[in-house]
Amino acid sequence: MTAPETPLAPELAVSEWFNTPVPLTLAGLRGRPVFLHSFQLLCPGCVAQALPQVQRIERVFAHTDLQVIGIHTVFEHHAAMSPVTLRAFLHEYRLKSPVGVDKAAEGSDIPVTMQRFGLRGTPSSVLIGRDGTILHQAFGVEDDIAVGARIAMALSAPVAGDDACADGRCAAPMPPVVEP
Amino acid sequence: MTAPETPLAPELAVSEWFNTPVPLTLAGLRGRPVFLHSFQLLCPGCVAQALPQVQRIERVFAHTDLQVIGIHTVFEHHAAMSPVTLRAFLHEYRLKSPVGVDKAAEGSDIPVTMQRFGLRGTPSSVLIGRDGTILHQAFGVEDDIAVGARIAMALSAPVAGDDACADGRCAAPMPPVVEP
Amino acid sequence: MTAPETPLAPELAVSEWFNTPVPLTLAGLRGRPVFLHSFQLLCPGCVAQALPQVQRIERVFAHTDLQVIGIHTVFEHHAAMSPVTLRAFLHEYRLKSPVGVDKAAEGSDIPVTMQRFGLRGTPSSVLIGRDGTILHQAFGVEDDIAVGARIAMALSAPVAGDDACADGRCAAPMPPVVEP
Amino acid sequence: MTAPETPLAPELAVSEWFNTPVPLTLAGLRGRPVFLHSFQLLCPGCVAQALPQVQRIERVFAHTDLQVIGIHTVFEHHAAMSPVTLRAFLHEYRLKSPVGVDKAAEGSDIPVTMQRFGLRGTPSSVLIGRDGTILHQAFGVEDDIAVGARIAMALSAPVAGDDACADGRCAAPMPPVVEP
Repeated sequence: MTAPETPLAPELAVSEWFNTPVPLTLAGLRGRPVFLHSFQLLCPGCVAQALPQVQRIERVFAHTDLQVIGIHTVFEHHAAMSPVTLRAFLHEYRLKSPVGVDKAAEGSDIPVTMQRFGLRGTPSSVLIGRDGTILHQAFGVEDDIAVGARIAMALSAPVAGDDACADGRCAAPMPPVVEP
Repeated sequence: MTAPETPLAPELAVSEWFNTPVPLTLAGLRGRPVFLHSFQLLCPGCVAQALPQVQRIERVFAHTDLQVIGIHTVFEHHAAMSPVTLRAFLHEYRLKSPVGVDKAAEGSDIPVTMQRFGLRGTPSSVLIGRDGTILHQAFGVEDDIAVGARIAMALSAPVAGDDACADGRCAAPMPPVVEP
Repeated sequence: MTAPETPLAPELAVSEWFNTPVPLTLAGLRGRPVFLHSFQLLCPGCVAQALPQVQRIERVFAHTDLQVIGIHTVFEHHAAMSPVTLRAFLHEYRLKSPVGVDKAAEGSDIPVTMQRFGLRGTPSSVLIGRDGTILHQAFGVEDDIAVGARIAMALSAPVAGDDACADGRCAAPMPPVVEP
Repeated sequence: MTAPETPLAPELAVSEWFNTPVPLTLAGLRGRPVFLHSFQLLCPGCVAQALPQVQRIERVFAHTDLQVIGIHTVFEHHAAMSPVTLRAFLHEYRLKSPVGVDKAAEGSDIPVTMQRFGLRGTPSSVLIGRDGTILHQAFGVEDDIAVGARIAMALSAPVAGDDACADGRCAAPMPPVVEP
């Protein structure tokens, strides 16, 4: 039994979910890697670059246990980016994976999840490992090749603390299957 | 005195203007060519292709008397694309030329200007000549080279019925100056 | 009778032609606008940007009397860009309009046509009017909209010194027809 | 001792190398993953898509032990794509990693390495594992995310048959370091 070297990712704070029948929590997803992407629907870089990349990630890793989650982290023009507008946006841009509305914070324009992760703006992304720790966090859109490599490594990693190496033998993690 | 061979473009019906100190009318712009572009802020093709083209048009023809006008022709998701959201959208996407909100029509989702021009959807564009007639109308985004050529021809044309050929002599229209 | 304000474009010097049954000369093309583009087959900017633009120009102005001419102005790596390699290059890149090999100059790496026009490198382009004068010359690739506008103006211009304004009346130049 | 489940990749047959002081062999690279890319300098898809992807791969995996190798597999227009032209091409396109000229085959337009790997055309790519087996082979350019994921998995894999699990304990493979 060892103490974790890396702190766990903070929990999501979401006031409304789209594209999922039940609310999601990072605690409930422990054991699966999570690609968390933060966006605003009126952010040009999110619309032109980050969200198309998210859709490529979903397509390439469709047959793995990666969970993709979007967080609508509105920190400006709040009245202009209400959940009503978000719903139509998700429909028009054909975004199918779960999206949560980041919970408004009292006395601040920066919503709660955005504060907890210390996100500097949109678009941002956070890759969370099977063990719940943050493997990588970025502000802006990164190279597809590097993103694909990091997600593959997250998928390959054994769950920390599970039975991978119990009883004197080590079970290999299931290798991810990557489809073109 | 001759009857016009081509009908005049119908007048705009706008409930709210952005990026202009005074309301615009096509009648008031007679004598200048007008590039009218119709869009919705949640229309992916408008955001990714048509509006960047509009900005290239503005840059290339900045030193001519071409007037660029946007019409926000919302025909679906009306609550999601209110003027409040449009204002933030114009700010975030750095759109500087005049944009009018197409006037809602009673008993129809299709707003008034969109009906008058018979626009089939967004993005659409209408090129209006110095004489107020429609020179070209398109649904979707056309090739930059063809768009540039049509606008240049519209700029080169003399105003029908003006003094270009009076007093037994013909004045050449001011040639447009095109900057890179 | 007036002296020309602008000097005529210099004549082409070509050692071998492709994609044309007969050699071309600017003198022989007088009365038609000419879009002359200078390239090298191992020039990355030519291959990635300029030649695709040339193909868009050909498509948009296919029904006008614009003549597009390519000049292979090799000024470095001469052994690597021989006519044998050029022939295969034109085939693989589906270039259909006439291309001439710029004539080698004695005692210089810069070929003759390139010297005559004072081209600074590749890609370059020269727009020549119906009257044989240079309307515009550029090093590098310019905005499609501006290129389309300039070509349309060249097509609209009457031939200097022709019968456009003879016998006390002025014939309008045939307006160019621009297809999408 | 177990029989290999996957056959080893065939050896390269190269008549001339660029960008490397010594000839390379797959046998000599055993223990390192190899990204082998096959191209022709007059192949439009190679120039526009595959080679830029190769350069992104080199940048992202610069700090790993991945070896990138290009093979110039000329199977048409042989006279047009000689090593003289290839040398200038590599210079102009700033390709820095090793490139071998695929050895001409007697009595066939298809060169030897291309035949051995059964490549269907250009561009093609082959990902070879640390153990020398072919992990993935593709005709055409694939999604950057999938390519990045596959290379990361190849980097993560332990060398088959080495001491990873000797002496009753298993050494983890060095995790790849991926830079943006």
